[in-house]
Amino acid sequence: MTGTLIGVGVGPGDPELVTLKAHRIIQGAKVIAYPSTEEGESFAREIVADYVPSGVVEIPIKIPMVAERYPSQVIYNEAYTCINHHLSFDQNVIVICQGDPFFFGSFMYLFSKFVNKVPIEVIPGITSLTACSAVSLRPLCARSDTVTVIPGNLNDNELEQALKGEGAFAIMKVGRHLDRLKSILERLGLFNRSTYISHATLANQVVAPLSKAPEIAPYFSMILIPSEDKYVTY
Amino acid sequence: MTGTLIGVGVGPGDPELVTLKAHRIIQGAKVIAYPSTEEGESFAREIVADYVPSGVVEIPIKIPMVAERYPSQVIYNEAYTCINHHLSFDQNVIVICQGDPFFFGSFMYLFSKFVNKVPIEVIPGITSLTACSAVSLRPLCARSDTVTVIPGNLNDNELEQALKGEGAFAIMKVGRHLDRLKSILERLGLFNRSTYISHATLANQVVAPLSKAPEIAPYFSMILIPSEDKYVTY
Repeated sequence: MTGTLIGVGVGPGDPELVTLKAHRIIQGAKVIAYPSTEEGESFAREIVADYVPSGVVEIPIKIPMVAERYPSQVIYNEAYTCINHHLSFDQNVIVICQGDPFFFGSFMYLFSKFVNKVPIEVIPGITSLTACSAVSLRPLCARSDTVTVIPGNLNDNELEQALKGEGAFAIMKVGRHLDRLKSILERLGLFNRSTYISHATLANQVVAPLSKAPEIAPYFSMILIPSEDKYVTY
Repeated sequence: MTGTLIGVGVGPGDPELVTLKAHRIIQGAKVIAYPSTEEGESFAREIVADYVPSGVVEIPIKIPMVAERYPSQVIYNEAYTCINHHLSFDQNVIVICQGDPFFFGSFMYLFSKFVNKVPIEVIPGITSLTACSAVSLRPLCARSDTVTVIPGNLNDNELEQALKGEGAFAIMKVGRHLDRLKSILERLGLFNRSTYISHATLANQVVAPLSKAPEIAPYFSMILIPSEDKYVTY
């Protein structure tokens, strides 16, 4: 008998944007794991802090903020060993993930190590994509729109390719790419349709036309470019 | 003083995949509206049926299942008048939406009629996109993947264009387009990476490789094509 690895999405930040299912599972957890800074701070854990049960075993996965993959590899191997230990005693391990575990989520790294070895369950969460659309009151897509979600760290050429065509676009993880993205969107005639959002659903949330975006964008920021006929009418 | 129009996403079907915020708002509702069949059946309302307060005013928006837009236009105009009446008495109106209100949601039609006229709030919901990824245990995207969401009703040419390039793809609302989509995916070399999902998170959920999909697909079905390196490792 082995426990189940459960990846639980806890949404973009507002503690109320957690599902009833995630709430129930976390409330009943015996062992939880989550990504954290080297100092042990974890945004994912903060979202659900009010109902993490007392006495729960906590496994912070302390990811160093460096570009190289080497230290993270070591950290994930350690996390694997530790989580596997609990699973082998028929204990479920709940991995708390900001947003959705399978939508640009860090859960993927654990998933890849455990898949086909132990039972795995994934509880979907509210993504930043729909959270940003909601707080900016800009409908993302309807009817026969395509939607392309684009990571901001692509190079200029890849970005231009991805931004071609019709439909709606969302550029994730804008951060230090803001200026570069602005130029590209300008060149492609998409600048005026673009909305900038950071820290969606949190107290320090910013929503602005891209022309009024702050000069420095945090990592958790997005540019939304809804489809051209943004208001759908019958 | 006017009430607020609140579009509330209630997720893909599992009543536990509703957010705490949606749950609280619906529990406290005085007036709710939702899309329904002409017979008054509403999938969105069913999801939250357990906590719709007794005595609530209900506005079913009975959309006829026909291709023409004319009758829907009349129905939405009637719904507008009725909802506007309640709002004008400083009463909030909660519009219950399957999935997410701004992600291919029917809420868009009401939004377009009320935007810039009354206060509007949107509560994001779990989309079928991440629900299908979760139940099929197939991570959708990581790192620098792009994700393209494609409605199944596009024509062959549009589909081929949308399915070009790298990254992950999700084809929504497969329904009667299943055979056509299969041929196109085969032609583009994407068939073997494709997973078919219908009724995600519900008791009658189906998850299968596309090669084993049933012959007839319901409207609420999806084909997921995660990015090629589907398991992400450090």
